[in-house]
Amino acid sequence: MFKTLKIPEATIIRLSVYSRFLTQVDRRGVVTISSGEIAEGVGVSPAQVRKDLAYFGEFGTRGVGYNVKDLHRHIMKILGLNNSWPVIMVGAGNLGTALCMYGGFRERGFRVVGIFDSDPHKIGYKLNGIEIYPLNEMVEVVNQTGAAIGIIAVPADGAQEVANLLVEAGVKAILNFAPRVLSVPEEIELRNVDLSVNLEILTFNLGFRRSRD
Amino acid sequence: MFKTLKIPEATIIRLSVYSRFLTQVDRRGVVTISSGEIAEGVGVSPAQVRKDLAYFGEFGTRGVGYNVKDLHRHIMKILGLNNSWPVIMVGAGNLGTALCMYGGFRERGFRVVGIFDSDPHKIGYKLNGIEIYPLNEMVEVVNQTGAAIGIIAVPADGAQEVANLLVEAGVKAILNFAPRVLSVPEEIELRNVDLSVNLEILTFNLGFRRSRD
Repeated sequence: MFKTLKIPEATIIRLSVYSRFLTQVDRRGVVTISSGEIAEGVGVSPAQVRKDLAYFGEFGTRGVGYNVKDLHRHIMKILGLNNSWPVIMVGAGNLGTALCMYGGFRERGFRVVGIFDSDPHKIGYKLNGIEIYPLNEMVEVVNQTGAAIGIIAVPADGAQEVANLLVEAGVKAILNFAPRVLSVPEEIELRNVDLSVNLEILTFNLGFRRSRD
Repeated sequence: MFKTLKIPEATIIRLSVYSRFLTQVDRRGVVTISSGEIAEGVGVSPAQVRKDLAYFGEFGTRGVGYNVKDLHRHIMKILGLNNSWPVIMVGAGNLGTALCMYGGFRERGFRVVGIFDSDPHKIGYKLNGIEIYPLNEMVEVVNQTGAAIGIIAVPADGAQEVANLLVEAGVKAILNFAPRVLSVPEEIELRNVDLSVNLEILTFNLGFRRSRD
């Protein structure tokens, strides 16, 4: 499916939001829902909802709307979340620990199966029930668990080295929290999370409001 | 400026990326730069760069390009980053600690001026040189420091209560890391950071590649 279209990242982010909303609606026992109701529930326009879903084919029935369970299942499949994903974490510091505790990952099927750290004092301990391994056991753990995703939660200076280790260990995708631009082979999916961008959107909006008022 | 236009959030995020790139370029001593060079440096199309900048008026000189320092200064002003921003953090757990240590905030002018926690054992200690206060001193600290932004780094269950306290204390904007939908008065800028969305974009892209190959 969707072989040739370029899907905007904003659409993917909204699909993720729709799926969370549908989970809530489904729990309330709702069977069908219109694009207008989804739109109102998540705060976008009905046209946007229909446009986002149209990238992936026809779902709803005109005049009836969408079956909540079917639409939810379909979106989860589009997002690749119809299966659970084993994930490895590199860095057992504050950020790595916070991410291992983060309930939002588990809810969406991301399961941290191993943590790696260069500090020998941390090896063998567990964090939230997950074992901490030395960096040189990464290949083995990736092979055993089938982890396709690695999260980098180390300081900026060590991030590129960790990225190299993850690639060698065979992960297919990397989520990087270190504030450093990384280079990886083209076939690896890399995503950088810049936490300060979120603050910058707030400061922009504060300025925007002031100029508007 | 830009009183009536609705600026897409994706544009704001790219402005933030452009400004980081311009910082690097400026450090290398480059004086002028074309939209094509910016585009190549950050991985978007030249048309996108021109479109993003066009929201905020005319900057460059046709055939010459942009003056690096001027453009950087202008973008920082648009983002509201021509001044530094005092920020308060609520939650001195792993996530709050990681965020207080995060170099990316300081680099962009965000300065954590106080941390708040409900645990009496943490009060009076310092985290990265920043004092930890009890929740009931929030009003006073906000008044003294002029902090306009509060970051919520507490578990989901306590997040709404913390949001209420931040609003009462007088912050204008809230960045929420707790995986919980919060309600705040309309005049407050609220932004939720859902860390798992980043993983979902990776899993979507992994599926997309597979279907494309």
